Amino acid sequence: GFAKIDYNREVRRGYPEVIYCEGKTPEQVREIALRMYEKGSNVLGTRASLDHFEAVKEVCDKVVYYDEARIISIRTDEIKKTKGVIGVVAAGTSDLPVAEEAAVTAELMGNSVKRIYDVGVAGIHRLISKIDELRSFRVIICIAGMEGALPTVVGGLVACPIIAVPTSVGYGANFHGLSALLAMLNSCSSGVSVVNIDNGFGAAYSASLINKIGE
Amino acid sequence: GFAKIDYNREVRRGYPEVIYCEGKTPEQVREIALRMYEKGSNVLGTRASLDHFEAVKEVCDKVVYYDEARIISIRTDEIKKTKGVIGVVAAGTSDLPVAEEAAVTAELMGNSVKRIYDVGVAGIHRLISKIDELRSFRVIICIAGMEGALPTVVGGLVACPIIAVPTSVGYGANFHGLSALLAMLNSCSSGVSVVNIDNGFGAAYSASLINKIGE
Amino acid sequence: GFAKIDYNREVRRGYPEVIYCEGKTPEQVREIALRMYEKGSNVLGTRASLDHFEAVKEVCDKVVYYDEARIISIRTDEIKKTKGVIGVVAAGTSDLPVAEEAAVTAELMGNSVKRIYDVGVAGIHRLISKIDELRSFRVIICIAGMEGALPTVVGGLVACPIIAVPTSVGYGANFHGLSALLAMLNSCSSGVSVVNIDNGFGAAYSASLINKIGE
Amino acid sequence: GFAKIDYNREVRRGYPEVIYCEGKTPEQVREIALRMYEKGSNVLGTRASLDHFEAVKEVCDKVVYYDEARIISIRTDEIKKTKGVIGVVAAGTSDLPVAEEAAVTAELMGNSVKRIYDVGVAGIHRLISKIDELRSFRVIICIAGMEGALPTVVGGLVACPIIAVPTSVGYGANFHGLSALLAMLNSCSSGVSVVNIDNGFGAAYSASLINKIGE
Amino acid sequence: GFAKIDYNREVRRGYPEVIYCEGKTPEQVREIALRMYEKGSNVLGTRASLDHFEAVKEVCDKVVYYDEARIISIRTDEIKKTKGVIGVVAAGTSDLPVAEEAAVTAELMGNSVKRIYDVGVAGIHRLISKIDELRSFRVIICIAGMEGALPTVVGGLVACPIIAVPTSVGYGANFHGLSALLAMLNSCSSGVSVVNIDNGFGAAYSASLINKIGE
Amino acid sequence: GFAKIDYNREVRRGYPEVIYCEGKTPEQVREIALRMYEKGSNVLGTRASLDHFEAVKEVCDKVVYYDEARIISIRTDEIKKTKGVIGVVAAGTSDLPVAEEAAVTAELMGNSVKRIYDVGVAGIHRLISKIDELRSFRVIICIAGMEGALPTVVGGLVACPIIAVPTSVGYGANFHGLSALLAMLNSCSSGVSVVNIDNGFGAAYSASLINKIGE
Amino acid sequence: GFAKIDYNREVRRGYPEVIYCEGKTPEQVREIALRMYEKGSNVLGTRASLDHFEAVKEVCDKVVYYDEARIISIRTDEIKKTKGVIGVVAAGTSDLPVAEEAAVTAELMGNSVKRIYDVGVAGIHRLISKIDELRSFRVIICIAGMEGALPTVVGGLVACPIIAVPTSVGYGANFHGLSALLAMLNSCSSGVSVVNIDNGFGAAYSASLINKIGE
Amino acid sequence: GFAKIDYNREVRRGYPEVIYCEGKTPEQVREIALRMYEKGSNVLGTRASLDHFEAVKEVCDKVVYYDEARIISIRTDEIKKTKGVIGVVAAGTSDLPVAEEAAVTAELMGNSVKRIYDVGVAGIHRLISKIDELRSFRVIICIAGMEGALPTVVGGLVACPIIAVPTSVGYGANFHGLSALLAMLNSCSSGVSVVNIDNGFGAAYSASLINKIGE
Ligand SMILES: Nc1ncnc2c1ncn2[C@@H]1O[C@H](COP(=O)(O)O)[C@@H](O)[C@H]1O
Ligand SMILES: Nc1ncnc2c1ncn2[C@@H]1O[C@H](COP(=O)(O)O)[C@@H](O)[C@H]1O
Ligand SMILES: Nc1ncnc2c1ncn2[C@@H]1O[C@H](COP(=O)(O)O)[C@@H](O)[C@H]1O
Ligand SMILES: Nc1ncnc2c1ncn2[C@@H]1O[C@H](COP(=O)(O)O)[C@@H](O)[C@H]1O
Ligand SMILES: [Mg+2]
Ligand SMILES: [Mg+2]
Ligand SMILES: [Mg+2]
Ligand SMILES: [Mg+2]
Ligand SMILES: [Mg+2]
Ligand SMILES: [Mg+2]
Ligand SMILES: [Mg+2]
Ligand SMILES: [Mg+2]
Repeated sequence: GFAKIDYNREVRRGYPEVIYCEGKTPEQVREIALRMYEKGSNVLGTRASLDHFEAVKEVCDKVVYYDEARIISIRTDEIKKTKGVIGVVAAGTSDLPVAEEAAVTAELMGNSVKRIYDVGVAGIHRLISKIDELRSFRVIICIAGMEGALPTVVGGLVACPIIAVPTSVGYGANFHGLSALLAMLNSCSSGVSVVNIDNGFGAAYSASLINKIGE
Repeated sequence: GFAKIDYNREVRRGYPEVIYCEGKTPEQVREIALRMYEKGSNVLGTRASLDHFEAVKEVCDKVVYYDEARIISIRTDEIKKTKGVIGVVAAGTSDLPVAEEAAVTAELMGNSVKRIYDVGVAGIHRLISKIDELRSFRVIICIAGMEGALPTVVGGLVACPIIAVPTSVGYGANFHGLSALLAMLNSCSSGVSVVNIDNGFGAAYSASLINKIGE
Repeated sequence: GFAKIDYNREVRRGYPEVIYCEGKTPEQVREIALRMYEKGSNVLGTRASLDHFEAVKEVCDKVVYYDEARIISIRTDEIKKTKGVIGVVAAGTSDLPVAEEAAVTAELMGNSVKRIYDVGVAGIHRLISKIDELRSFRVIICIAGMEGALPTVVGGLVACPIIAVPTSVGYGANFHGLSALLAMLNSCSSGVSVVNIDNGFGAAYSASLINKIGE
Repeated sequence: GFAKIDYNREVRRGYPEVIYCEGKTPEQVREIALRMYEKGSNVLGTRASLDHFEAVKEVCDKVVYYDEARIISIRTDEIKKTKGVIGVVAAGTSDLPVAEEAAVTAELMGNSVKRIYDVGVAGIHRLISKIDELRSFRVIICIAGMEGALPTVVGGLVACPIIAVPTSVGYGANFHGLSALLAMLNSCSSGVSVVNIDNGFGAAYSASLINKIGE
Repeated sequence: GFAKIDYNREVRRGYPEVIYCEGKTPEQVREIALRMYEKGSNVLGTRASLDHFEAVKEVCDKVVYYDEARIISIRTDEIKKTKGVIGVVAAGTSDLPVAEEAAVTAELMGNSVKRIYDVGVAGIHRLISKIDELRSFRVIICIAGMEGALPTVVGGLVACPIIAVPTSVGYGANFHGLSALLAMLNSCSSGVSVVNIDNGFGAAYSASLINKIGE
Repeated sequence: GFAKIDYNREVRRGYPEVIYCEGKTPEQVREIALRMYEKGSNVLGTRASLDHFEAVKEVCDKVVYYDEARIISIRTDEIKKTKGVIGVVAAGTSDLPVAEEAAVTAELMGNSVKRIYDVGVAGIHRLISKIDELRSFRVIICIAGMEGALPTVVGGLVACPIIAVPTSVGYGANFHGLSALLAMLNSCSSGVSVVNIDNGFGAAYSASLINKIGE
Repeated sequence: GFAKIDYNREVRRGYPEVIYCEGKTPEQVREIALRMYEKGSNVLGTRASLDHFEAVKEVCDKVVYYDEARIISIRTDEIKKTKGVIGVVAAGTSDLPVAEEAAVTAELMGNSVKRIYDVGVAGIHRLISKIDELRSFRVIICIAGMEGALPTVVGGLVACPIIAVPTSVGYGANFHGLSALLAMLNSCSSGVSVVNIDNGFGAAYSASLINKIGE
Repeated sequence: GFAKIDYNREVRRGYPEVIYCEGKTPEQVREIALRMYEKGSNVLGTRASLDHFEAVKEVCDKVVYYDEARIISIRTDEIKKTKGVIGVVAAGTSDLPVAEEAAVTAELMGNSVKRIYDVGVAGIHRLISKIDELRSFRVIICIAGMEGALPTVVGGLVACPIIAVPTSVGYGANFHGLSALLAMLNSCSSGVSVVNIDNGFGAAYSASLINKIGE
């Protein structure tokens, strides 16, 4: 068939294969989701449109759609919550879809999550007023578009690892997220590592692996 | 000859032509400097090496060399100082040559200048402890390499115009200053405009024009 | 909530937060506008579509839409005009939307503005015939696409600071404004600083800060 | 002075400021190192040449030089070792300097480190023969130039977080490390985050923060 | 007329001209196809939409449409099959359209083809379980998007030539296939050569020329 | 108003201003065309859509639309033809729109034009069979997309100047015409100069200036 | 041997093959020059170092070296001069080597040449004072680095064809001449075509072909 | 140790591991070469400097240095020659080092090789005069810098597979080989696949695998 699902991934990696829905037809997503579900696996699909969701809904009504995050999920078990908290810190209102992709993924992977949104560095007091909360996290996902300065400033304030997510928010010399990506890769704060532009999912996956070290 | 000096520039623009020494031979720089000096003009040369300086020194011993700034200057008159102050704010020790090019140019153009160096955003308290001084400037030149976040943070703290200078300090995905340049062009702080990578001179020229509006 | 409005910005920066509407839903813009308006603040939204305007109109009929500039505005007070004038100089007819974003923003921020449009350097006499007017401005916003030569030529004629705005007008090796952006950053005229491609708003903000130094 | 050392960094971040020696004169590095050392701080300098080392040696003979890693270090206390181990996995012999920068940094920050070098994916059996060791690490630093495939393959085999470091090893369409950087950012393995090209130091810093969560 | 069909190409190159349908109107494709068919030539059209197919169908009902591959074909003779087999190996489900363009082209050019899909390197056991089959091919077409690691790993396992096809599957720093393209050009496995992004057709053409050397 | 038509251009340059219609509203184009027409000028508009044409048609029914070339034209005088001939040589069927923009522009500027289409270098005999005709031209416009090799090969066969036009035809690593543009700028044939991607108009304008030197 | 000299080129193209010396050893250049000279051909070598010159000098003392232009020449006949004049117009003193490469090449190809140097657009009166001379040329070579605006302004003033040469003069966002190259390709003046960065030779070759149409 | 030699590679791939000497010290190369030689393996090192050669020479005087190709070789057995011939076709004299890297590698891998150099497409008769020889090859390696047109033209003349090698020969908008690379990837001739810029070795490796299919 068209898909060789990696059923063994949970054994190797601690988490089953995740469906990247973009570029797949609703039919393809439905079939993959169903096959995984029937094997007893939790199902997580990212970049899912309403069409993807509805196709899966036809065969499994336990499926849930998180529209801002563009995520579909089928659970076969209860989600447990970690004691350690992942902070999801985002710079602007326009970064929200990426932030939600990160936050929902982290929650579905069993993490306690705290959202701190719209605290971009152009009004630094917004960030500094949150300093105690920032210092309480075990790992931080830090999301920003445009000049991508947020992880550098946060990185100077806390002692936990930071996963930075550049977003494609902006225009012109932003070049679809390149400005934020390069800024984050060149952060003069140490302890910052970076994932692909708009990749909230990947940041959450890394953050979850890190967070669980402390459980 | 090889150079058509724009003697009229001072009339039109308020400041004589400035010699960009890079890529010119010491002999060419000497001749241009001499012709301007003999016309009674102040002489300013940027990106000057010691060789350029020494060539000019042979014909005019009033010439001064600012080595960190890589600037040569011959004055025919006293430098007056403005009441308004230009702040030259730089992120890291490695940005110093660009910062000095800006500061010395601004001083030679008759401005009062205040230097605030090594206040990068990875240790934001260094910047915040300077907040009153930052707010006292009429215009700020803000210099940073790597992720280029400094002008955005400063821009959120003050009400004066900011000229941002990206530097080529860094490596890898810094791409010789591209990361800082793009970050500054995409600043989410308003009131920030940008000059070329490492162009301390250009920033000082703009800042000087702005500062003198208030005299 | 999704937006932490920076109410304190007017105190720090002399002007309230501006809403960047692109990528926000009409509902989000309406809510932010309303909250700001209810706090007694003037409201300015850029990159606003008709949908954004109409959503705000539902809750506040004082809102005005500038369609060429794509700006929405709610005023709680009279706009005062500066004595110093900002010149908005644009190269071609196709640069008009960016020029209007700049001109309207500057006016709403309380500046006297004079528009000089379609004076691209391919017919230099058009520009030179305006030389006295160009020399009367306190600061110039200079807008051009394609080869982006206009700020360099204007910069050689006047003694005031220039804010250059590259536009994405053009095709092929224009690369969505990159040609004009690079040209402006490399201007051989001094006193030119640059904002992001198509960022008429940012240019006006900087120009306004500069203009008010002289009041 | 030219440097405002961030003495407070250890309090905030758990580790003192690190000196980035590239672009600093030996005299500047000597002075910064000395000032930190006299404050009782451990000193770590990256991208240090022999000249930097010798300048510091003049004032402090406890300084040690790791030449392959290009690191200088002055210790004021014993290095403790973590129970958890950081794996430093590198693709080719030419990636060694970056790998050593990572490994030595991690050790100086108090981590147990295990090096696995020259296990590039063109001979995948070399990697697979190490699978048990790979699965024993708490966090992996994964270093590769050229096509940068190593973190993706390793990422498919283990359940711990991976910090990927692209190197500038290669030529032509490698574009000084861009090929490896883009490959790592686009990894189809989850749990991989990325630092700047050749930034062994940054990877070790992140890995150390992660590793210590488990102590 | 608008097209000078290269009827002589089959003599020189062993295969008639192939119609690249993208950017041609249905009418243009119909006319070219008809003229070739009437000359007794097999007709192959790539990047064909349903519209192209239907236009040709009107004048020649022997035309066949391979929709996943986006190929149209008119045969005037039987397709013979080679003894040697071309392996078409693809990394992910989303690479399917490119893989099918390659597989169908190769079949229509008279080759035996074996498809191995969804064996990306993030789950390397899927690939290794196919090792005997991989070693049975005379030439392999290897297709991958994102980090483009597949040809490097396959290249380390087999002794036959590999034609690598980067796909535009991905987002962000994938830059429309650039990440996979650069990765493949910089493969540390020898024996890998590369065609344009998404160019399944070109890979099949090269593979067919190679495969027929062994017949 | 929004447009300052450069009526004087015909005096200076031998040809009136040409309207670049892309990005202008039909109303703007109509007004500019009408004002020029009423001044007695010939009118030429490039990148004109049917909408632009119809808007002009409403006020002036002498207007003609060349749809493949996307050109509108209003003539106030007879077009004379030069003795010298401009050759318009294009590589593939898909390059036709650009080739027609060039050919029609050249004709409307009073030149004799000969079209030679679909003679790409993959079937070099097609080109060589035209060698006498190629050598009869006074100037050649040479149009190609993809690898952009045509001007180099033609340049090796003829003794007249060549204006090369890269087209955006292709996909993937073509990067919207960049491959052809770079190839043409780096041609190892001398006597080849280049205009912007898809700029048939500009090539015709240059060719016309050259051709008329010989009349 | 290593070189297949194209002796027939003069017949086909009106001018013998020209030696591009960069990347060739002095011995290779000497041998090629000698073989051409012995066949009775004029010899022209560009990008020649003093070493190349001296190697040729050993076997042929008629060779001449133009050091600013980096050209070597052996003449077997008198150079005739055209009636029509090629104007070589350069923006800044630093563009001189490229301008001289163009001017000397044009002269050696038998053209009358007039140099107008250091007339960059930042002091537009310098250019306008030359307007009659500019209008007397049959073709203009226009050379500029940095923002590359000169050909656009000149193009608006004259009716002859212009060959634009971007130079690599500048720094930072100049990207080794990219800024000037893009600016020239996007010129809003018509009648401007472009050659490679720093390619004074190529510009002169095209200009010579054009100039001779009028003889 | 620093290197894990892949002794098993000959079994899997039919050829032992090849040493990429660039970036390795002479000592590292010597040790790797010796260990391989002592295991009875043939040794091949590319990008070898004279220093690398001399270091190996100290321990094994059978080592041979091909200086134009920058290759070192130690043979433990006789080189056999294939019946089928690999054509190495290069555009210009400056491409020679890359061409020799390809030719020598192919010979050392046991292939019959025929060199055809300096047949660039600017003088197409040079190529066409070789047409029978070109058609006699089983596979062609086609090498060109600058506009990279050669493989496209050759590809239109022959029926065998072509491996294209872009070289970094050129300047300016050549961007270190990018122009030739993109041109080759976008070739409108089918049957052309591409290796990295300057990668003569890789082309020879692929060509050798292909050539041996026919033995
Ligand atoms: N090799 C390195 N790569 C990236 N950043 C570094 C490196 N070494 C030190 N740093 C960071 O650079 C900062 C020093 O910047 P500066 O003020 O220019 O000395 C330190 O705070 C470190 O976090
Ligand atoms: N047209 C514009 N271009 C760039 N920045 C803008 C524009 N309009 C508003 N802004 C800035 O964007 C910020 C709002 O970001 P956000 O939190 O995403 O709404 C404001 O503080 C403004 O300074
Ligand atoms: N297709 C075209 N490509 C590039 N430039 C053009 C084109 N058509 C017209 N132009 C030029 O664009 C200028 C008009 O710019 P604008 O003021 O925006 O209308 C004219 O002076 C023409 O020289
Ligand atoms: N999918 C494809 N990708 C690249 N080249 C193709 C493709 N399909 C056909 N071609 C080539 O494109 C050429 C046709 O170009 P044209 O004259 O524009 O139709 C043919 O000779 C084919 O070799
Ligand atoms: Mg906000
Ligand atoms: Mg510092
Ligand atoms: Mg106009
Ligand atoms: Mg190795
Ligand atoms: Mg899959
Ligand atoms: Mg065709
Ligand atoms: Mg000058
Ligand atoms: Mg040659």
